[in-house]
Amino acid sequence: MVPHLITALNGPINELEARILDSMPAIERWFRLEWMEHTPPFYTSVDIRNAGFKLAPVDTNLYPGGFNNLTPQMLPLAVQAAMAAIEKICPEAKNLLLIPEKHTRNSFYLANVATLVRVFHQAGLNVRLGTLDETITAPTELPLADGGTLTVEPLVRKQGRVMLKDFDPCTILLNNDLSAGIPNVLKNIEQQYLLPPLHAGWAVRRKSRHFAAYEEVAKKFAKLLGMDPWLINPVFAQCGTVNFAEGTGIECVKANADAVLAKIRRKYKDYGINEKPFVIVKADNGTYGMGIMTVRDPKELDELNRRTKNKMAVVKDGQQVNEVIIQEGVPTYERINDAVAEPVVYMMDRYVVGGFYRVHADRGIDENLNAPGASFVPLAFAEPGNLARPGEKPGASAPNRFYMYGVIGRLAMLGASYELEQTDPNAESLEVESA
Amino acid sequence: MVPHLITALNGPINELEARILDSMPAIERWFRLEWMEHTPPFYTSVDIRNAGFKLAPVDTNLYPGGFNNLTPQMLPLAVQAAMAAIEKICPEAKNLLLIPEKHTRNSFYLANVATLVRVFHQAGLNVRLGTLDETITAPTELPLADGGTLTVEPLVRKQGRVMLKDFDPCTILLNNDLSAGIPNVLKNIEQQYLLPPLHAGWAVRRKSRHFAAYEEVAKKFAKLLGMDPWLINPVFAQCGTVNFAEGTGIECVKANADAVLAKIRRKYKDYGINEKPFVIVKADNGTYGMGIMTVRDPKELDELNRRTKNKMAVVKDGQQVNEVIIQEGVPTYERINDAVAEPVVYMMDRYVVGGFYRVHADRGIDENLNAPGASFVPLAFAEPGNLARPGEKPGASAPNRFYMYGVIGRLAMLGASYELEQTDPNAESLEVESA
Repeated sequence: MVPHLITALNGPINELEARILDSMPAIERWFRLEWMEHTPPFYTSVDIRNAGFKLAPVDTNLYPGGFNNLTPQMLPLAVQAAMAAIEKICPEAKNLLLIPEKHTRNSFYLANVATLVRVFHQAGLNVRLGTLDETITAPTELPLADGGTLTVEPLVRKQGRVMLKDFDPCTILLNNDLSAGIPNVLKNIEQQYLLPPLHAGWAVRRKSRHFAAYEEVAKKFAKLLGMDPWLINPVFAQCGTVNFAEGTGIECVKANADAVLAKIRRKYKDYGINEKPFVIVKADNGTYGMGIMTVRDPKELDELNRRTKNKMAVVKDGQQVNEVIIQEGVPTYERINDAVAEPVVYMMDRYVVGGFYRVHADRGIDENLNAPGASFVPLAFAEPGNLARPGEKPGASAPNRFYMYGVIGRLAMLGASYELEQTDPNAESLEVESA
Repeated sequence: MVPHLITALNGPINELEARILDSMPAIERWFRLEWMEHTPPFYTSVDIRNAGFKLAPVDTNLYPGGFNNLTPQMLPLAVQAAMAAIEKICPEAKNLLLIPEKHTRNSFYLANVATLVRVFHQAGLNVRLGTLDETITAPTELPLADGGTLTVEPLVRKQGRVMLKDFDPCTILLNNDLSAGIPNVLKNIEQQYLLPPLHAGWAVRRKSRHFAAYEEVAKKFAKLLGMDPWLINPVFAQCGTVNFAEGTGIECVKANADAVLAKIRRKYKDYGINEKPFVIVKADNGTYGMGIMTVRDPKELDELNRRTKNKMAVVKDGQQVNEVIIQEGVPTYERINDAVAEPVVYMMDRYVVGGFYRVHADRGIDENLNAPGASFVPLAFAEPGNLARPGEKPGASAPNRFYMYGVIGRLAMLGASYELEQTDPNAESLEVESA
């Protein structure tokens, strides 16, 4: 279950939403059974698009930033979830080592780190920050916008353990997505828990593998609810050897965009949806909203200007883009003050702990909103009078639309759990052992 | 960890409070380790008294009513905790049978039941209500104050299982404290989980056993924090054969009141506390605030008037009082609008899910507040600006006083866990088996 938050969209709910709300006990039980078989990622945030006729995750982040955008009233949920997570991983833990991103001058990001530190402190852990920045060789204070400070310290490697000076953690939690590759200091850790695992980092992870795993989840879930999985699952294809700067491999992108657009067109026709289909082409290992473009017609790919080519060629930490995912575009019909908005759902362990809207005044309903100029509107708890009550007549209370977003967020998280199992480099040898 | 709620008391925190707040990670870790060894009760509410110099639980309820007095904003915490509880007990569960008290005309109590139904529904269970009232032989609708209804149904016994018509639950949750004795329909259940267990009901349970177990917990915790356990533990004594109506056994009560008052006097002297000690004499199996009196001088017990004798002679469901507990009185210095108030902390599984103040305008700081005329003031989440931040200078932020109440509430809950282990009628045979 998820908190009831006030959503921007507050009109009558459509058939898909009604079905999800009506099936709450069956859905919760289904998740409960899935989590008996599969381990949830430590924490997850999911970007969701609500097109009214379709509701789908478009990005699943395993190193979520932006915890500072949740309302402080939500934090007890995060703390409670963190306690549950820690208890499973390392119940005797005293110390948690948190490794943030290196960009230490971004005050929004630092506010996210400060929020995480508070959550884990309140969950009963001594939390200290270690940095992958090798230029930092002594404890360094970083100023926070609210007047406080964070101290980051150099990592110390002692055989199989990663620590700080006088600080030996049971668990190392990454809030750094490893776009720049897996650093040596994190390799071959033997006696500690490193979460998320190294193969969840963008040095290894691929969006297309995630969405392939998500498709399995969406099919199972759709079967449970007796509905078409497409209603919650974006169609996608992948190209493995693309070089936008040199203009090679674009044919594959064109052909796949064409195929995905045709599939969307067919579905739109089946459902009588009067929309212009579009696809999102993005780096298969991309993050931070870099390397993303909207394609409404494959011909656009023949006429890419230099600026777009450059934008598509590299992502965070200067990583080259060679693999791209061509994903069905899901328009978003959520609006905040006339600006296009998409809900972002935050989870810790298997619990939804809050969410916010990513809002961009200068973007269309068919564009990526994770771009400079985006702002964040925390989702507040719904007022007591607004709480949905099961069994009451429709219209008697406002629907808990955020419940639905929490379901989709958790489906994407479950997809990530499948994905990490399928891509676990140690999984095969384990299977051999048990055989 | 517990949510940060606004408490009535907002002055500077004293040494005891400061020590508890400063020791947060150590305390949370300690609870984590205790819960590895001991099972928390399914749900618990604890009445707490804050005297400034002393902070102690005075009553631990294993069938909490009053969930309707928590703010709706808190309910997601309860739902999350309920999910964690269900997952441990009966992860495949679809159905929960909730058995409330029989007094179906008390609209406040029914609002509590309705709140519990919503919490478990949102945690993913089909919830139906079964009644121990044998005069109810068909599904019966009970009106709620908010216009809704609840339906209670007669219980159906099928060999080892308790069910309703067409409803076979995995877990049966009692919100009925069994003051009237253990009904036959609940005896010898074999294939289902009945929670809390039968020996937690007032037909079997004794306050004195609870506070003996709590004393163990208080000593362990005090050792962890390097403090005197008395600061969180009320002194008590017990008398086993008292009859207030006939005036027999009063000598034991007098002698024990004298002894407890002497112990309090000594402590007050040690700590330089300038207060008049008092004890609370109450039914050892009592509940609902019945059968309780304040004694400042043992001589008062010689001069009991008819009204007091009658009041002390019977408790809920007309049960005779033969056993009494003589407990150190802890004055409460919390005030809401000049009325005396005591915090009540609610827990589900091992998580604090909220709290409220019990307020009584006509009672003194040394009297029981659980009496007709009491009102309830929900504790609200503290505003963002008020959140305590670890490491900040004292005074830089309001202390999270509710954290402390959550710690004491959980200590009492842990006491109840020890108590239920020690009084488990099946425990001995298990020990023999493992020997």
